Amino acid sequence: MKRALIVVSHGSRREASNEEVKRLAQLLSTHQENSFDDVSAAFLELAEPSIPDGIAAAIDRGADEVTVLPYFLSAGRHVTLDIPAEVDKARRQRVDAVIRIAPYIGSAPEMSEIVLRMANNNAGR
Amino acid sequence: MKRALIVVSHGSRREASNEEVKRLAQLLSTHQENSFDDVSAAFLELAEPSIPDGIAAAIDRGADEVTVLPYFLSAGRHVTLDIPAEVDKARRQRVDAVIRIAPYIGSAPEMSEIVLRMANNNAGR
Repeated sequence: MKRALIVVSHGSRREASNEEVKRLAQLLSTHQENSFDDVSAAFLELAEPSIPDGIAAAIDRGADEVTVLPYFLSAGRHVTLDIPAEVDKARRQRVDAVIRIAPYIGSAPEMSEIVLRMANNNAGR
Repeated sequence: MKRALIVVSHGSRREASNEEVKRLAQLLSTHQENSFDDVSAAFLELAEPSIPDGIAAAIDRGADEVTVLPYFLSAGRHVTLDIPAEVDKARRQRVDAVIRIAPYIGSAPEMSEIVLRMANNNAGR
């Protein structure tokens, strides 16, 4: 069983924003708590790879279980409708792997504590 | 010294998304680790209150130190330019309080661990 994780963000016209998500995926792949064999980034729009292309690439690299994690803070239309629709496209194209959608990052119960900790960090200007 | 925290998100045409940020602010205000006297939400665009209005309201409620926390995942134009510009407007209008900008939530070092934990949570479909 080879497991892949795909971190999905919206995608931006600013390449630096897309790079930030790709760097996060790289960081995750070497993270001590990582249990995925393959970690990559994909984008809902405005950047490459798309969600179906990112999923197909992970399967081509050998994944038979793919987890798509929406890197979004709120459960807007992108999280509730658009990402599931893109994942469904991938499911129709690739029946050779199980594709799951994880809860979006903003729904993590730790977010409150992180907000409070960052707010007390006066490193910002 | 009365300290206020304002969680700033982009703002959405979907009222449910704006409500999610307001609920987070409410949750924070009663959180056991909260040390702020006043916690509220404000929006960069598309929703009310604006950042200057949210800051002015917190000061009117008695805050003399206001921390603005950008509830954004990446350091795009909104975080690097637009929010500082809105905060500068507030600083010019209200010299009766110190207004700080905290680091954006996506820069929290814990984000990697949260992504991995959420990805391993198969409660999503």
